[in-house]
Formats: sequence, structure tokens, C-alpha cells
Amino acid sequence: MSSQPRLVEVRQNVLKQNDLLARSLRQRFEAAGVFVVSLVSSPGSGKTTLLEKTLTRLIDNGNRVAALVGDLATENDAARLARSQAPVKQIVTGTVCHLDADMVQRSLEGWELKDLDCLFIENVGNLVCPSSYDLGENLRVVLMSVTEGEDKPLKYPTIFNTADVAVITKMDLAEAVEFDLAGAYENIQSVRPGMEVLQLSAKTGDGLNEYLGFLVSRMESRSLVGKVSVG
Amino acid sequence: MSSQPRLVEVRQNVLKQNDLLARSLRQRFEAAGVFVVSLVSSPGSGKTTLLEKTLTRLIDNGNRVAALVGDLATENDAARLARSQAPVKQIVTGTVCHLDADMVQRSLEGWELKDLDCLFIENVGNLVCPSSYDLGENLRVVLMSVTEGEDKPLKYPTIFNTADVAVITKMDLAEAVEFDLAGAYENIQSVRPGMEVLQLSAKTGDGLNEYLGFLVSRMESRSLVGKVSVG
Repeated sequence: MSSQPRLVEVRQNVLKQNDLLARSLRQRFEAAGVFVVSLVSSPGSGKTTLLEKTLTRLIDNGNRVAALVGDLATENDAARLARSQAPVKQIVTGTVCHLDADMVQRSLEGWELKDLDCLFIENVGNLVCPSSYDLGENLRVVLMSVTEGEDKPLKYPTIFNTADVAVITKMDLAEAVEFDLAGAYENIQSVRPGMEVLQLSAKTGDGLNEYLGFLVSRMESRSLVGKVSVG
Repeated sequence: MSSQPRLVEVRQNVLKQNDLLARSLRQRFEAAGVFVVSLVSSPGSGKTTLLEKTLTRLIDNGNRVAALVGDLATENDAARLARSQAPVKQIVTGTVCHLDADMVQRSLEGWELKDLDCLFIENVGNLVCPSSYDLGENLRVVLMSVTEGEDKPLKYPTIFNTADVAVITKMDLAEAVEFDLAGAYENIQSVRPGMEVLQLSAKTGDGLNEYLGFLVSRMESRSLVGKVSVG
């Protein structure tokens, strides 16, 4: 992104195209009965670790899940996530700082959406650019790790505003980094009043049940009652 | 950034304009005898903490330093850095995911560059977009914290390729997060063979002398011998 007017104009057209494509993706997901969750955060906040645990738990409970994972380079995350036995595809973006609806659509080729209960999309690690791109998801989860500091919601308000729930990760390190949990909640609420906030450590498993329970409750509220189980 | 051809074309023009402006900035810095260091990293890697300690140490040793600090929102970092007594200006970028040469140039208004020995520029926390924008700096420092994991150089190769030195931060947390230091070095070398790598904890101060010594050695190699001191 940049501040030059000419670039802004072209970007607006690109975003319009993306919104149209995301809308048609959302209709496809709805028709197929698949619930779509996207994860956004800065690099190294723990998206892949949380997603691996999530996929494993959902599969162990008989759910049909899959994942798309975006990175500028490497297929490392797809390899990590494949350990969960879920179908996974890596989207390598090159120099592009975010996923867009077109990348998602192209990655879905060869998959039967109606055979899935849940699809997870892990975005490129970036607290800025992904906020502008609708991927057709039902739920956007923004992660912030305790090691990043309490001020990130204030500094990156748009990504918090465009997400549906905030998850504070790496809670096992909270004491070591003197994380101010109350301050973090306050900052999140100041940029997005009423936002639901969860906290967990994917490493120790603390808070994981609550997170999975939250996902299921959101699926249920979209009339997928009983379709998805976390045991 | 996006993959659409039309946007790519406009972006190339923007980047060309930025390169021209950065070149003229670099000439101004050179003429004024000011050494310019920029810091890039993902959000929460510790740029501001390291910079605050750096400014304080350089000022305590009689150097004339100043800082520009970029964020999408808030003036928090400028307030933090001002505690060092250095002149500091915040650049608020709104939705823009990086600093550019024009923002730097406009922020310099009112400052006499010849009255400075060193100028620091802290970029927006982002491992993707800042890599494309030359700010006219003499030295670009990329930070990665141990909490982000060893794989970041592989996943964000361009930012490592466009930086002059990599600094591994938050070393005090290395054990708690089971950081693989040898693996991190290997990954950095695989994307940028021969890159100098430093490690430190701004919190405990370990490695800070080596980092400051490195900065001074780079200033000296630009014929500023004896001008800057870290005591």
C-alpha cells in the first residue's frame, strides 16, 4: 500500500473485485455447508501451532476439516499442518503481503467442499494488509501473542476492527514478559468495543477447550447445529 | 500489494519515484555528515525498546541523535523514545503498511541535519512491505525475536535480503521458547549468505555493547571515524 492517489484508485478497483469474488465464495461455502475460519496475526504469533492443534482435535472427534495456509515462501507450514492428517494446501504468495479471494478460489480446485465441515485459512503473517481483503470466511480470528506487547490493538486498529474475535496466545509466557492482561483487554475494547477475547497457550493446552468451544458455538449459530463436534 | 498486473504496473512507478527520492535523501544525509540507520521487523519484536536503549547510550556519550518512528496509529512510540531526551517525531501512516522516502523527507522539516551525528528510523512493524522502500538509510537492521521462531528468514526472505544486518532479540526468552539459535543462523545464511548476525536482550542488556559497537564500526567505515562514541 502507499499514499499516492493513483495507486489508491487502482487499489480501490482491486478491492472491489476482491469483494465481489469473496461474496461468491461465501455463497459457495454456504451452499456446501462448510464453515470457514480465517486466522490473521503478525509473524510468529502462533497461528500454525494453534491451527495444528485445532485440526487434530476436530479430526479426532470425527469432523471433516481442511486448511489453506499462506506464506511468501516455503511450504513448511503445510507440512506441519499435514501432520494432523487434514488435507492442506500451501498458497505461496511470493512478494504479496496477504491472501486474496482469488488465491483462495484457485486453491480450492480439486476439493469437494460438500465433503467438508470446516475449512481454515491461515493468512500471511502481517497485521496490516490482510485486513483489507475479504476471503469469504464466516469468522475471522485475530491472534496476538503476549510477547508482542499490549499495545498492538492500538497500533493496528483495522485488523482488530475487521476480525470477529481476538485470541491472546502464548499465555504460558505472560509472566516472563510481564504481560499486562487487563491492559490488553482494555486496548482491544477501545478499538473494538464488545469484541470477544479469548486467551490460551497452544503449547500447554490451557484455554484450548474454550477456544474450540467458541468455534463450535459460532458454527451452531450459523445453523450447523450438531454437525461439528469437539468431543 | 496484490498480484493484479495493473496494480503491479502502478506500483513499479511508485517504487521508481521512491528510489529517486531516496537517492536524493541519501545525498542530503551524506552532505550533512549524518549516519542513518533504519529498523525493520514484525510487530512486537522489540524495535522501540532497543531503540530507546540505543538513543540513551549514544546521548550519554555525547552524540547528537534523533529518531523518526512509523506506526499506523498512535504516538505511543514517539512518547516512549522521547524519554531518551532525543528529538523524536512520529510518522502516523494511517492504513499504509510501510514508510516511504517521501514520509521521511516531510518529517525532516524543521530539523537541521548537520546538527546530527545519527538519525534512526523505526519502520512500521511488518516483515513484508517495508522491504521494497528505500528510505535513503546507510544501514538497514532487521530484527527477529526468539519468540517468533527460527523459520522467519525462510518465510520472509526479501526483508532479510534487503537488510544489512540481522539482530536476534529477546534472547532472555530463548530458553523458555526452546529457541534453536543454530537453526536460526542457518536459516539467515541460507537466504542471505554471509549476513552478519547479532543477538541481544534489550531487557537484560546482554549483547547491547556488541550491537552498539557494530553500529559504530559501520559509521567508521563511512569515514565518520571518531565522530560517534558509545563510551
